[in-house]
Formats: sequence, C-alpha cells, structure tokens
Amino acid sequence: MRKFNIERPDRRIEDSIRHKIDNLNKPKGSLGRLESIAMQICLIEQTLHPTLHKPQHILLGADHGIEREGVSVSPREVTWQQMVNFTKGGGGVNMFCRQHGFKLHIVDMGVDHDLGGYPAITDRKIARGTADFLYGPAMSLEQMDKAVETGDELAAMCLDEGSDIICIGEMGIGNTSASSVWMSELGGVALDECIGAGAGLDSPGLAHKRKVLAEATGRYHRWKPDAGVTDCIRYFGGFEMVAAVGLMLGAAERRLVVMVDGFIMSACALAATKLVPEARDYMIFGHQGDENGHRRLLQLLHAEPLLQLGMRLGEGTGALCAFPIIDSAVRMMNEMNDFEHANITKYF
Amino acid sequence: MRKFNIERPDRRIEDSIRHKIDNLNKPKGSLGRLESIAMQICLIEQTLHPTLHKPQHILLGADHGIEREGVSVSPREVTWQQMVNFTKGGGGVNMFCRQHGFKLHIVDMGVDHDLGGYPAITDRKIARGTADFLYGPAMSLEQMDKAVETGDELAAMCLDEGSDIICIGEMGIGNTSASSVWMSELGGVALDECIGAGAGLDSPGLAHKRKVLAEATGRYHRWKPDAGVTDCIRYFGGFEMVAAVGLMLGAAERRLVVMVDGFIMSACALAATKLVPEARDYMIFGHQGDENGHRRLLQLLHAEPLLQLGMRLGEGTGALCAFPIIDSAVRMMNEMNDFEHANITKYF
Repeated sequence: MRKFNIERPDRRIEDSIRHKIDNLNKPKGSLGRLESIAMQICLIEQTLHPTLHKPQHILLGADHGIEREGVSVSPREVTWQQMVNFTKGGGGVNMFCRQHGFKLHIVDMGVDHDLGGYPAITDRKIARGTADFLYGPAMSLEQMDKAVETGDELAAMCLDEGSDIICIGEMGIGNTSASSVWMSELGGVALDECIGAGAGLDSPGLAHKRKVLAEATGRYHRWKPDAGVTDCIRYFGGFEMVAAVGLMLGAAERRLVVMVDGFIMSACALAATKLVPEARDYMIFGHQGDENGHRRLLQLLHAEPLLQLGMRLGEGTGALCAFPIIDSAVRMMNEMNDFEHANITKYF
Repeated sequence: MRKFNIERPDRRIEDSIRHKIDNLNKPKGSLGRLESIAMQICLIEQTLHPTLHKPQHILLGADHGIEREGVSVSPREVTWQQMVNFTKGGGGVNMFCRQHGFKLHIVDMGVDHDLGGYPAITDRKIARGTADFLYGPAMSLEQMDKAVETGDELAAMCLDEGSDIICIGEMGIGNTSASSVWMSELGGVALDECIGAGAGLDSPGLAHKRKVLAEATGRYHRWKPDAGVTDCIRYFGGFEMVAAVGLMLGAAERRLVVMVDGFIMSACALAATKLVPEARDYMIFGHQGDENGHRRLLQLLHAEPLLQLGMRLGEGTGALCAFPIIDSAVRMMNEMNDFEHANITKYF
C-alpha cells in the first residue's frame, strides 16, 4: 500500500472564517451545526467562499465469503441483483442522488456475478467475492493493495472531474459482519458490543452471527498475535470496504470533503484514520443508524452525525440524506448578509 | 373566532400505504423516519402517490409590547430591520427558501414601523405592536379574531395557489416571552421550565425575564381565574403568533401539510391543537432547537422533530432545513422500485 501524504488543513485562516460566521446577520451561533460544518469546509478548501461543485457518490459493491456461514438475513445474490437495480435507477441510492444532484458511480469491486453486460457498472472486480474469513484471510496482500489503489484512483477521478465533495456507499451482503470485526479489532471494543442485526436478523440468527465472528477472530489472533491495521483489514476484508479506505485516504490527500455514511462506512473511516489520523479532518458524518454499536463507533471517531433518522439501508443513503444540510452551511457563507450590509442593529 | 372543521385523515387507506412502503426494494423499515413521514403525508393526501407541489413559506412579523420590559437581548427595531432585510434576500430564511424551492411570503401582522415602502411585504398590520402584557391583555378580542382570520386567509391563498405543503416562520423581538407563557398556561408546565435565553440573554437578563413573566402571569390569573385557550392567546398575544394559530388551523382544515419550526411555532402548534386537536395530524415538526423548554413542549405535542442541529435563528429556518427529508419521503413513494419490478430476492 502506498503512503498517503495527508496534511491537516492550515488553521491560519480559522480566525477569518470565525469572524465572517459571527458577523452574518443572525444571533451568534444561532445556526448551530451549520456553523461548525461551514468552518470545517472553509478550512478544507482554505477559503471564505466555499463551494460544493460536482458532488459524486461512489457506490462500491462486493461479495463476502463469510456470507457462506449464514451470518446475514439476505442471500448473496442480492448483492448483484441490487447492483443491477442501481443501473436502472430504482434503488434508494438512485433516488437520493437524483434529489441532491450527485453523479453516481457504481463500481464492482468483487461481486460474485458476471456484470459485464451492464456498462453503467465500472468493472474493478478483484475476485468473485472474498474468501471466507472463518478459515483464513479474506484476501491476499496483493488483493488488498489493488483495492486500496482502486479507491485512490477513484479519488483522483473525482478531483479530475472538478469535484469538491464525495460521498461513499456500499453494497455487499455480509459486510456488517466484516465491519463489526474491524470495529472490535481496530477500536479495542469487545466483539459483542460491535455486532448488530444487520438488515434484520432475528435473535437466533444474531446468536449464530456472534458465534461465527468469535470463532473467526479467535483463529485470527492465533494466526498473527501481533497483527496490525493492514493485517486486520485484509483478513476480514470486503473488497468494497478496503476500496472505501483507499478512497477516503485518497480523497483526504487531495483535499476533498468526504461524506461518511452509517455503520459500515464508519468502520472504514476508523480503518482510514488508524492508517492516517489526519484523514479525519476531511470527514463529515451524515447519519447515525440503528445498527448496534454505531453510536460507540462514532464516539471512537469523535463524530457527531448530522442526522438520526433510524435509517439502515446502506448504499450511502444516510449520508446523502444529510447533504442539504452541508449545502445550507456553504450557502450560509455565500448568501447571507452580514450585519453591516443588512443595516441591522447588531445582535449580541 | 370562527369554528374550524378539521377532520382526521381517513385511515381506510392506511393498509394500502403500509403494503406499498413494505414492498419497496429495501429491508422493511430500513428508511426509518422517512417511512413514517411518507405514511403521514399519504394519509393527509389520501393517495399512494403523494406530492409536495408549490411549497410556500409564510413569514409572519410583529412587535411585542413586552419588549418594553427589557426581556430580550435585541431591541425592537430589529424586527422591522429584519423584515426589510428579508425583502432583499439576505436573511437566513431567504437562503433556505431559495435552496428548497419555497415561495416566500413576508407578512406584516403588526410591526412597529411603517413598512409601506416595501411592496414585497404583505400589509396585514393590526397595530404597531401589541400592548405590554405586564399590565393587561396584549390585544383585544377583535384584534385576536382579525389575526386568526388573516392566518386563515393565508391558508386559503396557499390552497388556491396549488400548494400541498406550507411552512410557517416568525419574526418578532420578544416572542419567546409570549411563547413561554403560552406553553406554561396551555401545557400546564411550571413557568420557569418554559423560559429560556431567547436569542442570547445572559444570566441576569434571564433572571429579569423570569421575574417579569411571573408578575405578568400572576396579574393574568387575577384578571380571569377561569381563563380559557382564547383568553390566553390574546392576553399574551403576539399578532404573528395568533396569525400562525389561524394559519395552522386553516391549513389543516384544507388538508395541507404544515411544517412546524422551533420553540415559538411549537407554542403556536400547542395553542392550535388545544383549540382543535385534529389539527395535530397535519403537522410535521422540523427541528428541535436549543431553547430551554422546547424538548418538553414537543413532548406535550407528542412530536419527534426530524432535526436536532442546535439552530435557534427562528424565521422558520429549522423547519425549512428539514424539508429535503420530507421530500425524500415523498420521492421514496414515487421513485423506488418494488421487489417485483426490481427482480430482487425479497428481503425479510
């Protein structure tokens, strides 16, 4: 994996941004979270006049070997079926992209199906799904590097196309299992606290998922007692998840704003920040979902998501749903009068 | 005040709506609050294909006699200055209206300034501010009726113009004081629990506000020991607030969706539902603000706002900020495929 050179945004402009925000014609602080989001984006873009040009949503799909262990309520063919459905515009993610003006890229990182007949799906397939991590690493070192590299290339593409902001979503039956283990291993949280019902497991299904993941992590610890971050992400894998890590790092290096969705993308954000802590400054967290452990995961990331609407669809939809708030924050900086121009007696 | 004939939405269509929502291609319930909002709007509009045509934002402005008692951090001239600023497009409310495609009506219900030179402001001025309720009723019975009637006419206008949804905002220095007393009197909550810092009072300022409002309510109770809802709303007044009550009732009678903003508009929603409980079914609460007591007030209304972003600007901005979520709920009903059409193995 190449080294990502991510710098924290230069804070010398912070006082100027603060002064501008405080002199817009409103009581100080009265636009709440919009003001902190505006500050973050102005710092990233190093300007008092931020923009959100050409927002892009990168939807990464892949299958997971662990699905063979019956840890998910849905069968693996739902991954490719949904990927195809996204090309037809009928998915949740399509609706949000249309609503908020996002260009949608559907990327096959490793779906267990031949998607060659769908030109709307970008083919970056590494394999037809990962190996089953109950018995060993989900992917090889080479496959991990390839997935990170692909994410990095997608970040480069977004920059080339003039984007200021990107959002990342995922489609992959079984990926809450991989995310739970990443959270536990990388965040130092007991595994049981990281496991939830995914798309709708019942109680026996959840117990089975816990048992499978406990066995898998036990074997992993015997495999390499001193495992590091890259060991963890390749062992429990998810080609779409590793690509998301590469995309987050590549986007932060290129000073793009990165919108982070729910549990799975937050696990990827945790991995990305464990690799390069400075990447955190470029992330905006859109939505806190219902998945058990997501609140704790967000605490590990010192993240306060903009929305809490009980969504758990994935695909990046929670983050997309928060986009208008980010847009409002940017409009606030560009469209609101200041007290002087509005001829208003200044509020305290 | 005329009688409002508000009927609860006919629930015979509920099963059909539920069936449609549950068969969109997503795990059941996975769009969270979007699904409950979709249900509410489909019930109001009695359709499986809801619309949000011609959203309108009615911004009601007026001055308050109680401002003379120094209960607000801002002087009363800020009311008219901001009304003028809104005509120039530089206020927070303008920004949100542009962003979300709302037609903005700026209505002078009783601002203490001659706004005749601003044709963009609709003149419905009842008086140049209310009387100071520390010493007696803020307005006469006739003035209250006129304010309610004006709100009702605005609802009729919205219906005539083809609107499915309206949002209501307010501008009036001193109106958190009036709202706190409405909440206390109509909700049966101790006055101190209803009083907050408004646009930014410091601690001595807040103590003074508490003292003034306690004295005013004491005098009110002696004035009419068995006072009812209409006594309360006219005594503590706010022409913009009483007009908002009339607008909420008139809109519900005409089966329009009503977006309710922060503390002040929630106090108006409480008054409206005390007058006609069925009005509640037409209300969507946009934002829970920081104003002390707002959470409690929302509990009285059995309301769970869509957003909690720490906003306290007023003008209806919190509710406007939530509009894209309502829009997403409606798009979900119209744009998402169902499982059958998407050829997806049905999720559980």
